[in-house]
Parts: sequence; structure tokens; C-alpha cells
Amino acid sequence: MDVTRDNFNEALTEFHEAIACCDFAAIDMEMTGLYENRDNQPNRLDSMEKRYKKLKRSVESYGVVQVGLCMFTWIEDEGYYEARPFNFNVFPCTNVGGMAVETHFGCKNTAIEFLAKNSFDFNKWVYKSVPYLKYGDADNLLKARVEQLTSRGEPAEVDKGQIEFVRELKQKVAVFIMTKQRTMCCETANSYQRKLVHSIVGEYDNLGTRGRNGNIEIYKGTKKALAQQVQQKLQSMRASITEARGFCAVIDALSASQKPVVGHNMLLDILHAYSKFYEPLPQTHQLLERAMARFLPMMIDTKYVIESTLSLKNRYRTSNLDEIAPMLETEANRALNPTMIRNHPKFPKDFSSTESMHEAGADAYMTGATLIRLLKLEGGLQTNNEMALHPYINKVYVALEETMSWDMGQPLVGGDLSDDQEEVEDVIFYRSGLQTLKN
Amino acid sequence: MDVTRDNFNEALTEFHEAIACCDFAAIDMEMTGLYENRDNQPNRLDSMEKRYKKLKRSVESYGVVQVGLCMFTWIEDEGYYEARPFNFNVFPCTNVGGMAVETHFGCKNTAIEFLAKNSFDFNKWVYKSVPYLKYGDADNLLKARVEQLTSRGEPAEVDKGQIEFVRELKQKVAVFIMTKQRTMCCETANSYQRKLVHSIVGEYDNLGTRGRNGNIEIYKGTKKALAQQVQQKLQSMRASITEARGFCAVIDALSASQKPVVGHNMLLDILHAYSKFYEPLPQTHQLLERAMARFLPMMIDTKYVIESTLSLKNRYRTSNLDEIAPMLETEANRALNPTMIRNHPKFPKDFSSTESMHEAGADAYMTGATLIRLLKLEGGLQTNNEMALHPYINKVYVALEETMSWDMGQPLVGGDLSDDQEEVEDVIFYRSGLQTLKN
Repeated sequence: MDVTRDNFNEALTEFHEAIACCDFAAIDMEMTGLYENRDNQPNRLDSMEKRYKKLKRSVESYGVVQVGLCMFTWIEDEGYYEARPFNFNVFPCTNVGGMAVETHFGCKNTAIEFLAKNSFDFNKWVYKSVPYLKYGDADNLLKARVEQLTSRGEPAEVDKGQIEFVRELKQKVAVFIMTKQRTMCCETANSYQRKLVHSIVGEYDNLGTRGRNGNIEIYKGTKKALAQQVQQKLQSMRASITEARGFCAVIDALSASQKPVVGHNMLLDILHAYSKFYEPLPQTHQLLERAMARFLPMMIDTKYVIESTLSLKNRYRTSNLDEIAPMLETEANRALNPTMIRNHPKFPKDFSSTESMHEAGADAYMTGATLIRLLKLEGGLQTNNEMALHPYINKVYVALEETMSWDMGQPLVGGDLSDDQEEVEDVIFYRSGLQTLKN
Repeated sequence: MDVTRDNFNEALTEFHEAIACCDFAAIDMEMTGLYENRDNQPNRLDSMEKRYKKLKRSVESYGVVQVGLCMFTWIEDEGYYEARPFNFNVFPCTNVGGMAVETHFGCKNTAIEFLAKNSFDFNKWVYKSVPYLKYGDADNLLKARVEQLTSRGEPAEVDKGQIEFVRELKQKVAVFIMTKQRTMCCETANSYQRKLVHSIVGEYDNLGTRGRNGNIEIYKGTKKALAQQVQQKLQSMRASITEARGFCAVIDALSASQKPVVGHNMLLDILHAYSKFYEPLPQTHQLLERAMARFLPMMIDTKYVIESTLSLKNRYRTSNLDEIAPMLETEANRALNPTMIRNHPKFPKDFSSTESMHEAGADAYMTGATLIRLLKLEGGLQTNNEMALHPYINKVYVALEETMSWDMGQPLVGGDLSDDQEEVEDVIFYRSGLQTLKN
């Protein structure tokens, strides 16, 4: 299901249903860049703390344009996994109830080109995306709105260019109070003057203000009526905030479900998920481990599974999703079990071709399918053993920069490292108790 | 003329013709952001040096997506200005002759939304834009290519994981030399191994290397033939670089022409033009003044013209291009002189409607048209006086942040400052001799 702002509410309902009944969710994201340069990419010599700092910097520098989430449910009676893939197009919220919300994100030209090569629709991204706004940012906006609606009196210090404006304003208001007029228009030249009007008029219990084409209208009312209006405005702001939070509600539901989350080379994906849609990233690696235990308590990284399992490495000789996923699919077909994974009837899109490769929804589907096939196919992980996945829980693959390299400034994404050159290194967020994928 | 990579060569020829015969050029750009936050925006209290630092930071943080350039030529016999507007879509070059070129640029969500509101086509931008690559960056690429083609011998230090690879490689090459085989395939696992092969084979005068599907083919040849091949490869790299420089050739031609350049609130435009398409920005404001004297020796900023001229301020009460340009157009039509500006026959697009507002080519056209109308209309600048523009030469308007403000983090673009609140402050790059627009 491709999700834009047009069908987001419907999709959110479907997502809640899917997450409630699934056995695990697979995740993938498309981003606007990875690392500014080689120095910013984790390498073998870095301490764990230094690696985290570099990853945090990447996540805070670049944007997320698409989030793929695919829920897989084991259908016991018929013996297959049912998939529900979502492809969310996301763009940072720009405005809540008339208040601008600014977000800065970086882009790497080569990352944008990568998206283009995979037929990414940039117009759809900007024009149709689901917005997002973290709880913390939403709280700050609400506070600012409350401050704006309830600020009273002249500020302690008025810009010296505005002293005359303030003097005239006070005089006019004092006269207005005495007349029978119900409203008075107050011309303002800029936002600072508008702020002054709101504050100064705020001193009067029986006067209200409202914007009128860049100016301010001052109006009379009872204290009670005015207080009610303030409450109504706050109510309307809260509704706008809920709408602006948009995609964050999906990540909240994913986290609240505490279901296993599977990714392929997933470290940046989950850090982006945390940082963009949940909370600011913690300052240290240690705090991150604790935060992750709450945020997504069980993760499986299929790249780590392959890289750390000699039999899989020898059999497939690659841990790139682009390469291993089609091999596994062919094997599954040959094993006369192409129906090991079927789409839920409401999610008819076929991701089995490589056409949609690198669309986040398709990649999430393929990641989950890869794990299932590794578990179910002969020669894969030990089957029929509930403990099969235990060694892989919460170990996440880290793509490390080669110590010496030659291509000009091209960042290496995990998988370009050969067997003999790099050992697998991993971040262990925390060691959970004995758990398997189906919990 | 809307310019993409498809018609760039044709457009460049037209541009050379237009710049050669024009009296002045007008410029405008569309960017991915202005200032990261209010602290990064120049304000009244900043020293000139501090202001420059902030502007430099803005220019180095954000990208340029479109450059509008409109050349105006006075047709003496018939008494009108002929316009040739170009709208260049630009995107940083990603690859030259197989070598990746990485560029990082920031985006502000609200700036991207602004582009969207003005119907910007993001797909065209990414898929069809003219590339650009500054001379300095091109030189570095060529140097890297020379190094790659001429590096000889084993590096002083070989990564310890690769010692075995190097030992085997040397053995194989020593055997290959003795056989009658013409070529030998050398399997490599990554770019570092490929670098090692190139270097080690480079020790032999009579062996060459070439890439083959991620591996390297080593082949025999005479010393002379191999040297010729290196020269051919360098020649091909130089051709790729010329192509990759793309839009920079336009800015080179603009600068070389030394023609007057007109902009509206043009400071960021010309700094972007310098930084993105010409040379890195100088470190200090003083060095910038000298650099600008060479780069664009005569600039007129129509926003500065209006803001610093009491009669124009009183008459139009705005210096926003969106507002003043249509007023001046209506006046020109009323004065029965709608043909004061006509498009050159090869540039039939009509920019007189406001539909194309904020397309860079249309805004460049409007900026030039605004200056012409200010000069030609009754009540505008003193007409028939060659010195009329003298007080405005090389004075560029600076949009200053209000000292106190209230909207949440919304950057103020020049023009939101009222007359009584802000005096016009200006950057004077340097004072030129007596010059008028027509030189």
C-alpha cells in the first residue's frame, strides 16, 4: 500500500490492524544521504562511542523520504506467512495552525541520483507526503501557542524603533474602550508590531485580538467569552498538532507493539526512526542501548545474520539484499514452495519482481521474505528450532569504512567489504532473554 | 528559454550571442534554503565581517536549483529593450568519467514548500538538470585521474589484510610476463585491491591494466603504445570534465563579459553564483570586495534602488518584486508604452502574467523590466540622465533580521521591514568610477 497524505488515515487504521496480529515487522528507509565524507563514516579504529557519534551525526544531517514497513503473520492452519507491505512517503511538517515549523535536512547529490536511478518520484514526495512532527516539537509548539494567547502587558524592553508605535497604540486603545465601537482595526507593519499589539491588548480582560490580513482587529467581549475563545483556539491547535504528527503515529504504534523488527543493514534505519519520528537521539551509546530496549526491544538484522553465519556466507557469497533476495526467491520456487509467503488480500501489489527494488515498501517486504526463506529453506538456518534466531537477536551490522581506499569520496555501503578483508563487527544494543521470532 | 541537459549546448550558443550584444543582464536564483535559524541571519548589530560570515555560511549550506538570466539589449532605431530570458535548471555533477563527485547541500523544509507552492518541478530538477563543476574541483579530478593512470609500484604501506593478495599478485604477474598470453584476468574483491593491481602492474613498462566487470584485465603492449593509451584516457577525461562543468561555462561567460548585472535583493544570488559556479568564497569581507570587482564589476540591486530613494518609496510603498513589478507594468501599459520591452523572436515565452512568478527565468526578466520601467516612466528615476544610476552602482541590499521577533523560527526575507523600522543598510563592494547602465 503506497501511502500519501491523501490515504493516510485509512492506512493508519490498516497499519494498526496489521501490527496487532503480526509476528514480526520488517523495516526499510530511503534517505537523502549517508555520510558527509569518509571521515564521518565509522571505521575499525573507532571506539564504540566514536562510532555512535558518527552515526548520530549522519542521522541528524540527512532526511528520510520513504519508510517501508511490512508486517508478516504466520497463518498456522495453512502454513504460510501473510505479508502486508506499506510504503509511507514522508516530508517534515511545515506548518501547524498557522505557525511555521522549520526543519533543516542535508542531501548528498549522489544519494539523490541513487533515488532517481530507482525511479523515485520527487514531485510526489514534496507534494503528497505524509507530514511528521515528534512529540517534543509538538509540545513546544503548543507552549508557544499558549504563550501567544495568554501573554499580557507590554514587554519589559521594547525595541527603541517601536516606542512611538507603543505610545500611540496605548492611546488608541484607551480611547476605544470609552467608545461604543465593537471593533477597531490596528495597522501593523511586521510581526514584531503584531506581537506588541497582542501583548498590550492582553492587559485588558474585556478585549480580544484577531489577525485580519496582516493587521490586527481588536474587539470587545466579556471576560468569560474571551476566555472561552482562548480555549477554543487551543483546542483547534491541539487538533492541528495531531494532524501534523502524521507518520509519527505509525512509529508510536510500532514501538508500542513491542513486536520483533527485522531490517537489512538496519542501523541507520532504526536510528532515523528514533530520531525523526520518536525522540532526539541520546547523547551517548550507553544511553542509546537503554533507549532502544524501550523503543524496539527485539531486532534482527538479516545482513548480520548472513555475515556472521559461515554456512550462509559460503553458500551465497554475498550479503547484499539486491543479490541474495532473488537467489532465495529462486530457491523457494525450485523447492516447489512459492506460496511460503502470500500477500494479504488488501495488499495485492507484487514485489517479487526486481522492478520496485529500492522502493522502501518493496525493500521491507524483501527483507522479511529473506529472513523467512533463510529460516525455511534447506541449507539455511537450522529449521524447526525455536532457538535458531537466538544468536542474532539485537545484533546489528555496522558498515565500516575501509582503512585505505581509492574511489574519490564515494561512501561505501555495507556489503562492499570482502570476506577476507573485514571481520564482522557488531553493535550489541543489549542482550535480551531467550526469544525467538514468534513470540 | 527553459534549459535542461537536453538543450544545454544549443542554449549555451544562444547565451554567448545574447551576452555579447546586451546592455545588461538580470539574474535571479531559486535556492533550497536561506538561513538555518535566526542566529545565522545577519542583523543590525553585526559587524560587516560578521554579516559576511553569516552570508557565506548560508551560501555554503544550501543548494541552487534554478538560475534565471535575462539579457536586455537597447534597440536604438526603434527605441525599446529586447529581452532574452534563460531559465537554467541546475544540479551538482555526480560523476566524471566514472569517478564519483560528491556534493552536500542542505534543504529547509519551508523553502522546499515555497518552491512547491510555485509549481516547481522537482522531477525535472533531478532528472533533467544541467550539471556543474567548478574549475578547482575539475582540476582536482584531473589530478586524481593522472595519479591513477601513472601511479607505479607497491604503496609504501599495504593494509595488513592484503599482504597475501599482493604476494600472490606479484607471483602471477611474474609468471604472466614469461608466457605468450596477451592478457590475464585478475579477480579483485574491492576498490582497494583494484588500486593495488593498478599500482603494482604500473611498475612494468610493457603492461597495461583495464577494468573488466569489477575485476582487472592485465595486458601486454609496447611502452609507446601504453603511453599513448594513457594520453587517450587523459584526453577522454578532459572531454568528460568539459561536459561536467556544464552551467559553470555560463557564469564564466557572464563574468568575462564584464556587463552590468542587475538583481533584486541580489546578495545571496551573486554569492551563490560565485561560490557554486566560479570559485570558493574568500575568507574575509575585504577579500570578497576585491574578488567581486573582478567577478562582476558592475551590479545594480533594484531593491536597494527602491529602498534608498524616497520618491519611489513614497510612490509604491513596497520594494517586494511580487508587488512592485505588476504595478510598474500596469503604469507602463497606461502610459501607452507596453512595447518598451519586447522579447527577442527566439524567446517567445511571455512573462508578463504572474503565473510564472518565482521561476528564476521569469523573476530575472521581471527584475530587468522593473529597472527599465523605473528609469523610463514618469515619476521614476530621473530620466535622460546618464548619471541617474550612479548612486546605486555596486550597492547591494542586505535583508536584516529584526532585533526582536515572534513568529517561530520563520526567516524574514528582505521586504518585511517597514520604512519607519529599519533604515536601509548596504554592503558596498567597492566604488566604481562613473558608469551608467549602458556602457
